[in-house]
Amino acid sequence: MRVAVLGVGVTKFGEHWESSFSQLFVEAGSKAIVDAGVDGKDLEAIFVGNMSGGRFIDQEHVSALIADHAGLTPIPSSRLEGACASGGLALRQGVMAILSGFHDVVVVGGVEKMTDILSEDTTETLATAANQEWEAFLGMTFPGLYALMARKHMHDFGTTREQLAMVSVKNHANAMNNPNAQYHSAITVGDVLKSPMVADPLRLLDCSPITDGAACMILASEERAREFTDAPIYITGSGQASSALSLHDRKAIPVVDATSNAAREAYRRAGKGPKDIGVAEVHDAFTIGEIVAIEGLGFVEMGEGGRATEEGITQMGGRIPVNTSGGLKAKGHPVGATGIAQAVEVTLQLRGAAGKRQVDADVGLTHNVGGSGGTAVVHILEKG
Amino acid sequence: MRVAVLGVGVTKFGEHWESSFSQLFVEAGSKAIVDAGVDGKDLEAIFVGNMSGGRFIDQEHVSALIADHAGLTPIPSSRLEGACASGGLALRQGVMAILSGFHDVVVVGGVEKMTDILSEDTTETLATAANQEWEAFLGMTFPGLYALMARKHMHDFGTTREQLAMVSVKNHANAMNNPNAQYHSAITVGDVLKSPMVADPLRLLDCSPITDGAACMILASEERAREFTDAPIYITGSGQASSALSLHDRKAIPVVDATSNAAREAYRRAGKGPKDIGVAEVHDAFTIGEIVAIEGLGFVEMGEGGRATEEGITQMGGRIPVNTSGGLKAKGHPVGATGIAQAVEVTLQLRGAAGKRQVDADVGLTHNVGGSGGTAVVHILEKG
Repeated sequence: MRVAVLGVGVTKFGEHWESSFSQLFVEAGSKAIVDAGVDGKDLEAIFVGNMSGGRFIDQEHVSALIADHAGLTPIPSSRLEGACASGGLALRQGVMAILSGFHDVVVVGGVEKMTDILSEDTTETLATAANQEWEAFLGMTFPGLYALMARKHMHDFGTTREQLAMVSVKNHANAMNNPNAQYHSAITVGDVLKSPMVADPLRLLDCSPITDGAACMILASEERAREFTDAPIYITGSGQASSALSLHDRKAIPVVDATSNAAREAYRRAGKGPKDIGVAEVHDAFTIGEIVAIEGLGFVEMGEGGRATEEGITQMGGRIPVNTSGGLKAKGHPVGATGIAQAVEVTLQLRGAAGKRQVDADVGLTHNVGGSGGTAVVHILEKG
Repeated sequence: MRVAVLGVGVTKFGEHWESSFSQLFVEAGSKAIVDAGVDGKDLEAIFVGNMSGGRFIDQEHVSALIADHAGLTPIPSSRLEGACASGGLALRQGVMAILSGFHDVVVVGGVEKMTDILSEDTTETLATAANQEWEAFLGMTFPGLYALMARKHMHDFGTTREQLAMVSVKNHANAMNNPNAQYHSAITVGDVLKSPMVADPLRLLDCSPITDGAACMILASEERAREFTDAPIYITGSGQASSALSLHDRKAIPVVDATSNAAREAYRRAGKGPKDIGVAEVHDAFTIGEIVAIEGLGFVEMGEGGRATEEGITQMGGRIPVNTSGGLKAKGHPVGATGIAQAVEVTLQLRGAAGKRQVDADVGLTHNVGGSGGTAVVHILEKG
């Protein structure tokens, strides 16, 4: 399979008190349209990832809101939701829409406006991505769920508290070179270990922040892409899997089986394997998330994620640089936008347009997780 | 385009205080699986329409919840949302998933659990399908928006209060023969006109109810379908369009341009026109909704919807029976499930399996609207 990426655009990630939800989407979309060199009338459909417009901004039906605000009516516009994997789902639907022959040029995007409500309400809304009846209603939050995964990973595999911190240190360092990142602050392992405890063993600097932001891409069929560019980046693999919504129902607490299942499908479709991947954006909503991700994606053996991080394999210049954008931790995590923002970063890397954070790669991967692992979406992108 | 419908299933529509959200989905899904004669392991993906799990049951990420509860993990599961058109969007994504070559057999479904919260909160949640900033925040509700459409339609085209009532009378009569309908109560024009005023000119019996329910279909590629049946019903057309989210931003208040735009695409893909349609399920969330629908779909001329209803064109035995199931008005309107439930009814009609409400038709149409017309989805189904 080959679907071309014609253009990409992101807003700055952070607190956008003076931009509305739809303004954020339109800003990212406009950048992607300009980057693609397409005209509004070339666009045939919109697929938007959004986790909880209904609770963050009291607005469902955001698909029509966005099409309307962007001046793109009457083209079809659909919202995809899979908690923090909503963006990845939108990307996958856009790919399917093109490969089905329904559309030749589509917008895929993601957007979330999380700072318009009180932070305790934000935490409660994020907890709706967990199982309401078995987890959230009983007081479990996302830091709590990931803390359980971290503690069990430490117990089973000897992963250290410091190794968790090193994920955050690396991603903050990477974000220093990403002008659109929410944080531009280099941190040390000591800073992480001194930061306030959130859910033992996870501390504040192990956790991704609350973020407003949007990201968009213009995708096209291979034939149609030739009108606009000689050397597009191609999406060559897409995988998606589901798993038990509740952490306690998984086969193993520190293993996100949806990740390995989604990766298997994506590798198969692309005809690639973990060894072919030169750069990856993975779902580090919490530091432990990146460690279990690089294991689930096959970059390192099960249980080796902490040690691999300490050895620098995932750093800039390492064997497989991970989260060159700064990741969810330091770039920010506007939940519905994250899956698209990951693919934007990989596109820039493969184009050689990633500025000071540029790495050398021909094949890249994105990995987007919903909840504590109930959904995972993996995409593989390649140079043309 | 041809995608086969292998099986269909619905729950009874109504107040389900003893069934959970996911139980409803699994009940409808199990019926569809049995009807299709497929095995769980044949299923490759789930697309679920749901408007507001986040607000009705404090649960986003319902896609994973459903896959989990149904025992269908690790297959991919995605939620589509477009307000009351969510089910229609899920159906369309399932069609695309098959035509893209990604999947051969998929579940498309819709589900909503609306009675777990207070009815005033339900009204507020439904209003999130309108424009929050320009409509809902200012106190506008859905009966109010459709009342404006009704009043303007009466003004512009001479549609009468009695003609609106006749939609409801017809749909309640049809529901008498649908065992899964929420209401089994024949009503008269007089009953409608004496029912409590909700938003002038719309009265209680002009409005669809608050409903719990789910509906599912098993779709398959044409080749794969042959393993299971000699004579499937085929989906041969799919259309979707967006329009201004706010009623005041439309070109004309009593015209849902998203309907005519979606219909044009669906007719084009199917190679059919309005005259070919022998049975239709349309979005009668309010009585005026059915009148503007039959105009937008081209069954009657613009402005003639009221008179056509009075003449009996849309009754059982009329030129084009509309809402043989009882429609949203009398069958019930679990918002995320409605778009799928419509296609279930048309499938039953085309199979000749609609019991006492059977009509004679080779081609059927479904028409699902989000909000006051910000989204519309139209599908065309045919005998094989």
